Amino acid sequence: MYKYKIIIEYDGSEFVGWQKQENGNSIQESIEKAIYKLSNENVNVFGSGRTDSGVHARGQVAHFELKKEISIDKIRDGLNQHLRPLPISILESKKVNNDFHARFSAKLRFYEYLIINRRSPLTFNKKQVWCIFKKLDIIKIKEAIPYFIGKHDFNAFRSIDCQSSSSIKTINNFSLEHNEELLKFSISAKSFLHSQVRIIVGTLIEVGKGKIPPEEILKIIESKDRSKAGATAPAHGLYLLKIDY
Amino acid sequence: MYKYKIIIEYDGSEFVGWQKQENGNSIQESIEKAIYKLSNENVNVFGSGRTDSGVHARGQVAHFELKKEISIDKIRDGLNQHLRPLPISILESKKVNNDFHARFSAKLRFYEYLIINRRSPLTFNKKQVWCIFKKLDIIKIKEAIPYFIGKHDFNAFRSIDCQSSSSIKTINNFSLEHNEELLKFSISAKSFLHSQVRIIVGTLIEVGKGKIPPEEILKIIESKDRSKAGATAPAHGLYLLKIDY
Repeated sequence: MYKYKIIIEYDGSEFVGWQKQENGNSIQESIEKAIYKLSNENVNVFGSGRTDSGVHARGQVAHFELKKEISIDKIRDGLNQHLRPLPISILESKKVNNDFHARFSAKLRFYEYLIINRRSPLTFNKKQVWCIFKKLDIIKIKEAIPYFIGKHDFNAFRSIDCQSSSSIKTINNFSLEHNEELLKFSISAKSFLHSQVRIIVGTLIEVGKGKIPPEEILKIIESKDRSKAGATAPAHGLYLLKIDY
Repeated sequence: MYKYKIIIEYDGSEFVGWQKQENGNSIQESIEKAIYKLSNENVNVFGSGRTDSGVHARGQVAHFELKKEISIDKIRDGLNQHLRPLPISILESKKVNNDFHARFSAKLRFYEYLIINRRSPLTFNKKQVWCIFKKLDIIKIKEAIPYFIGKHDFNAFRSIDCQSSSSIKTINNFSLEHNEELLKFSISAKSFLHSQVRIIVGTLIEVGKGKIPPEEILKIIESKDRSKAGATAPAHGLYLLKIDY
């Protein structure tokens, strides 16, 4: 068997999410179909993790195995041809050893969350960024960010649907770049809880609106109570950026 | 009469262009309809210049006059409400003196042209950027750019439909920012010929593909012959960025 790793970009707007589901088109199934058209082999594609409906990726990673060998250039270009006109693009393909696993070998996951903060409605990228009309206090948001960095029990910051047995996670890096109307949050961790990034961003927006004081973040984390944190930020501002192995 | 200046952002993909036409929706007419809904007055909206079908704007400027006074906040927010769900957004509105004219008072026009240069197909912004698959030689493109700066007869770089009596224009600034797969051309002049920016960019792409040597640009300009320059770059990579008055 030949094992391949692919790096994938997708616009999540039109999909039910990464994972195969009964009720609509998933990125995973779209790629499996393209692999079948290219190789005539029915394979399972394993992603680094699920992304929810509407969430985008600039560097999702997945692996799969084929019985016959295909050149890595043909994997990339052939899959791209068969994926057309879907907004899924294979950026890179390479051969990997048998012990590589897109999910279990991952060392660090990087996400980005994009917000445009302005009074006028969006014309571009309506489904690729969260537009917030009320003027945000960027300084307060920046004061609140460091409370999230490090190892914490993030029970207050996970979806009630989260199935993870432990809610203790370590955030390695978390920063905000601010440039005119654009806010770009960058966050990385070995792994995240379900909706963790979106709930963290949603809570920071409450901070930016003056509803939660920055130092209150510490108490919200310590409460381990989902109802104390802010609303879940919309899926369409979130990007899976890259995975380190 | 009260005279208003508005700054407008639009995604040109869905329109026949800035100017009112029989055969489809224009940005100009969409704004005139929104002004009518807001003020009950039928007005002409004068833009700084036409943009072709598919061309975008991040800072188009227009003016119009009203018989009754409306606050500038209500102009911006009211027009945005009536423009919904079109991808046209009023970013700013202000009152101006009677002698202001969006087209004739313009001192400098700034355009941007966006290209993504990569082998894999686009997923995001398919209609907001020109995607070129063949690897471009950025150094050669940068060598060719200075030939365009300054006062020249740009007859070789205008559309055969161009109605301007003179083809002599002065390009004040022209530069290229290059960052991973993105190329961003920035160009400014008091005014441009029809399709001038798109033909200049199209020609530079031939330089980047190795088909035209950088120093050949001088000869193409001197030839004043449209057939010597490159193909017109697609409309959907072009943005009217701002106008200085």
